[in-house]
Amino acid sequence: MAISPFQKTRAEYQPQAPSCLQDLQQLQSRFASMQPQLSADAKTASALGELFPHTFKQTERGLIEFGAFGDSAKNPGEARALHVGVVLSGGPAPGGHNVIWGIVDAIRSLSPRGRVTGFRGGPAGILANDAMQLSADSVQPYRNSGGFDLLGTSRSKIDTPEKLAKCRSVLEGLELDALVIIGGDDSNTNAAVLAEYLVGVGSAVTVIGVPKTIDGDMQNALVETTFGFDSAVRVYAELVSNISRDTLSGRKYYHFVRLMGRAASHITMEVALQTQPTIALIAEEVAAKKQTLYAIVTQIAEVVKERADQGKHYGVILVPEGIIEFIPEMRALISELNQIIAEHHEYLASLSGFTEQSEYLHRKLSRDTSYTFSGLPIDIQRQLLMDRDPHGNVALSRIETEKLLIELLVSHLNEEKAEGRYRGNFGYQHHFLGYEGRCAAPTNFDANYAYSLGRTAAALASTRATGYMAVVRNLSNNKAEWQACGVPLLAMMTLEQRGGTTKPVIKKTLVDLDGPAFQYFAEQRKSWVHADDFRYAGPIQYFGPLALTDRIPLSLALQHGGSPLTNW
Amino acid sequence: MAISPFQKTRAEYQPQAPSCLQDLQQLQSRFASMQPQLSADAKTASALGELFPHTFKQTERGLIEFGAFGDSAKNPGEARALHVGVVLSGGPAPGGHNVIWGIVDAIRSLSPRGRVTGFRGGPAGILANDAMQLSADSVQPYRNSGGFDLLGTSRSKIDTPEKLAKCRSVLEGLELDALVIIGGDDSNTNAAVLAEYLVGVGSAVTVIGVPKTIDGDMQNALVETTFGFDSAVRVYAELVSNISRDTLSGRKYYHFVRLMGRAASHITMEVALQTQPTIALIAEEVAAKKQTLYAIVTQIAEVVKERADQGKHYGVILVPEGIIEFIPEMRALISELNQIIAEHHEYLASLSGFTEQSEYLHRKLSRDTSYTFSGLPIDIQRQLLMDRDPHGNVALSRIETEKLLIELLVSHLNEEKAEGRYRGNFGYQHHFLGYEGRCAAPTNFDANYAYSLGRTAAALASTRATGYMAVVRNLSNNKAEWQACGVPLLAMMTLEQRGGTTKPVIKKTLVDLDGPAFQYFAEQRKSWVHADDFRYAGPIQYFGPLALTDRIPLSLALQHGGSPLTNW
Repeated sequence: MAISPFQKTRAEYQPQAPSCLQDLQQLQSRFASMQPQLSADAKTASALGELFPHTFKQTERGLIEFGAFGDSAKNPGEARALHVGVVLSGGPAPGGHNVIWGIVDAIRSLSPRGRVTGFRGGPAGILANDAMQLSADSVQPYRNSGGFDLLGTSRSKIDTPEKLAKCRSVLEGLELDALVIIGGDDSNTNAAVLAEYLVGVGSAVTVIGVPKTIDGDMQNALVETTFGFDSAVRVYAELVSNISRDTLSGRKYYHFVRLMGRAASHITMEVALQTQPTIALIAEEVAAKKQTLYAIVTQIAEVVKERADQGKHYGVILVPEGIIEFIPEMRALISELNQIIAEHHEYLASLSGFTEQSEYLHRKLSRDTSYTFSGLPIDIQRQLLMDRDPHGNVALSRIETEKLLIELLVSHLNEEKAEGRYRGNFGYQHHFLGYEGRCAAPTNFDANYAYSLGRTAAALASTRATGYMAVVRNLSNNKAEWQACGVPLLAMMTLEQRGGTTKPVIKKTLVDLDGPAFQYFAEQRKSWVHADDFRYAGPIQYFGPLALTDRIPLSLALQHGGSPLTNW
Repeated sequence: MAISPFQKTRAEYQPQAPSCLQDLQQLQSRFASMQPQLSADAKTASALGELFPHTFKQTERGLIEFGAFGDSAKNPGEARALHVGVVLSGGPAPGGHNVIWGIVDAIRSLSPRGRVTGFRGGPAGILANDAMQLSADSVQPYRNSGGFDLLGTSRSKIDTPEKLAKCRSVLEGLELDALVIIGGDDSNTNAAVLAEYLVGVGSAVTVIGVPKTIDGDMQNALVETTFGFDSAVRVYAELVSNISRDTLSGRKYYHFVRLMGRAASHITMEVALQTQPTIALIAEEVAAKKQTLYAIVTQIAEVVKERADQGKHYGVILVPEGIIEFIPEMRALISELNQIIAEHHEYLASLSGFTEQSEYLHRKLSRDTSYTFSGLPIDIQRQLLMDRDPHGNVALSRIETEKLLIELLVSHLNEEKAEGRYRGNFGYQHHFLGYEGRCAAPTNFDANYAYSLGRTAAALASTRATGYMAVVRNLSNNKAEWQACGVPLLAMMTLEQRGGTTKPVIKKTLVDLDGPAFQYFAEQRKSWVHADDFRYAGPIQYFGPLALTDRIPLSLALQHGGSPLTNW
């Protein structure tokens, strides 16, 4: 890998860990009741207790807090040489390398004989025993860098009895004390399953999760945000504000920008807060209002028409990639399609092309969804049928929803124009921003946060706790005051119907329409529609005034912070 | 407009003008022969002399140099209060606001009674007399910011006798001494036409051009680069290196990134030098080698196959947007399509949709181009027919060449796989980067360069020269040593066949395959194909070490500089 001056300079940045994690030799831990409580009603709790009999007990002991509590507390850092395994799982997020760096630093601080082993290529790398030793030296060139390329990653899972047994034998063969799984909701669910399995079979290897995802959909009352969200959002905000400035200069295009984020619209809402576009659709709001595709298109068309009357034939419209499954009729269509594909995938595969598959599906779809399907532009029909995700489902992220909206708007506005209700020319451009930001070099916030999560994971390993997630709280305060703790994975789990069976899963967090961040957004956006109040976010700055280099996401500040808006 | 902390902080940056332009009261100018010579053979020169009889004489006097030359030289800054008009033309480029700032500063330095008037919405704003006074105060919030939104822009032209006359009356009505046109090759051609017209009708208003374009296609022996190129390229390089890091982490996709830049591949080559992708296509090379679409696809497929044998099923491939018109059979097709559309646009418009238009065109196309057309994926056929640029031609920038290549590669690799010559799964993603970078806040280099160009334009206005372009040279040296001068627009012009008639135009500069930049690229790229030598460029930094903040494009350094690669 070529090392640019940027990388070289950036590698010199030393992230700061919370003061409670700075001297690991003196580290103490204690159990604390969870304040605030996580949800899990009694029925769910009881079901989880049956599914996870061994690790469930730990939920009752509550979260693990780290700090200096005086003589009464337990000191876990008893100079024991630990051997910790680490694996990256799922899509990359800025900061992954810093989590590993934090683990390596902390394990070596606990004892010079401590070791860290990395598994290559995601969880599949554990099964293949594709491992490498990680040292301060091997981590050095990856400090504060983006990407997961030090170890690689994948969406592979350890979810069958055979894989669980194989995993155990690899971990025990390497004489690991703990395995740290850095991943999103699925990967942390997998961590909980593996932790339970290992305790159940009498293995001493513990399992610890680390909350990663750019999508921001794993936040809750205890997990304030995931690492990577801040950096990815800042890249998208940079680009959206460049696009806003462009449309304000040329005044001839509506730019439709679809943003990554899977089901939830956290990324879109945060980018909107940072850039103040003309319109930002929020999938959760569409669902709450039960807005149809027609309703959404009409809503945008009204804005286009009103702006045309002011002589404005341009604007910026943000579209969360998850919106497609929150529009009632699209959700029904996708659900039916997935079911038909699952039941008839062999026959479908035997049909040679789009036309034949489309004809066949029309006969299988219900009357309503068939009607919905026929009304879609041909390109979108094709994307719905031809692109599948690794589970065989419709690949939602490949559906160009921004183009769907544009095509429907063009038809709608042509009609309005012909009938005299629209005076303007509807010029447009479309964009999809996702891969452009997932591997950015982490912001200072993410660099510090991810490094701290790594140290926390190592501290948890030293307590021998299993089935915990490394969590760092109090993030809107000074870094030194951040609180390191461990939260039982089960405390974040719920039961979901997936493919006909009930499965325990880490709850995916959607945008809370009653929360302070959305409420603030809903108030602010009123003026954006007509005022062209575009905010120019600029690229991530790593040097210079703290107001530029050490920000936190606005939604995080609104949700957890004091009064962040004065200098925002 | 909301002012972010980034914008606020960035507005405090004070660009530095070349030392010769710092004290405008002491400024001297002299004519100098052009070293190195610009091309223009005798025949072209004579034709230009006939077309531009009045301004042609100035070419003979050579370029205007600014500096402190002692008593013998003329001092143009005789405390005369100038009134200068300024207009932005064509697509935005980072630094446009700094050119205006430089003009405002310089005109006020020459005399406190000096004035600057801006025209809104491009050249059409002159004809509509849509003008605003520009002062230090009104420019203040736009300092070092991206976009052309202070005045707006458009691609409108002043090219008919009526428009020229109208333009004169507006300029004289405002009692302007000079008009500064900030634009690309077309806009500077227009500046030359307007300058000639005004001299011809006895008007005292002078016209000065400023070289702007992110595309980098207006560089020549005297104009080292255009403002905006550096900043736009840096944004694209940031994103391409994020994408490279992503593909190196997940190892499952080939990312096809189409990059703006119109006909020329300067942007793609510079981005490639900064990011070291697996493959970077260069349109000029495709043309020189007369590569067909099939040849290009085969060339990429060979790399995909070789990498698959090494277990690598990922990579990054850069595609210049201009490539489509450099592929011989596509060029022929586009040319025929444009001609048919021009001749039959009324009948074509009467045909209701793609299928009817397509059938009609097949009957009109020659046998070869009809064959080419039929071989294209249906989406691309549609884009060729349905999207037109403002001149009615095929809108080349809307053709998703990256998808064309992907579709052809998928077919090709499926065949190779079925026949046992390819072992792999070809996963892909596609991107188009353009609008994301045209309005970035200028880099320090562009901020300084654009501001210096503005001061140079004002200095030229004070000499009463007309038909000149403001030029700053020696850019790979220290800013203080940059040389400000004026180059006759006619010296950069040539004659081209456009739509059946001969037209004088500023020459568009393509990538020089024999030049040092391409030669260096051609040498370097050999190792990129297999070594995954991705270079991580990082986002534009405005603070911190000079090695990060004050770079120049590598191709510029290679073309004009000494030994820039040591610290690159």
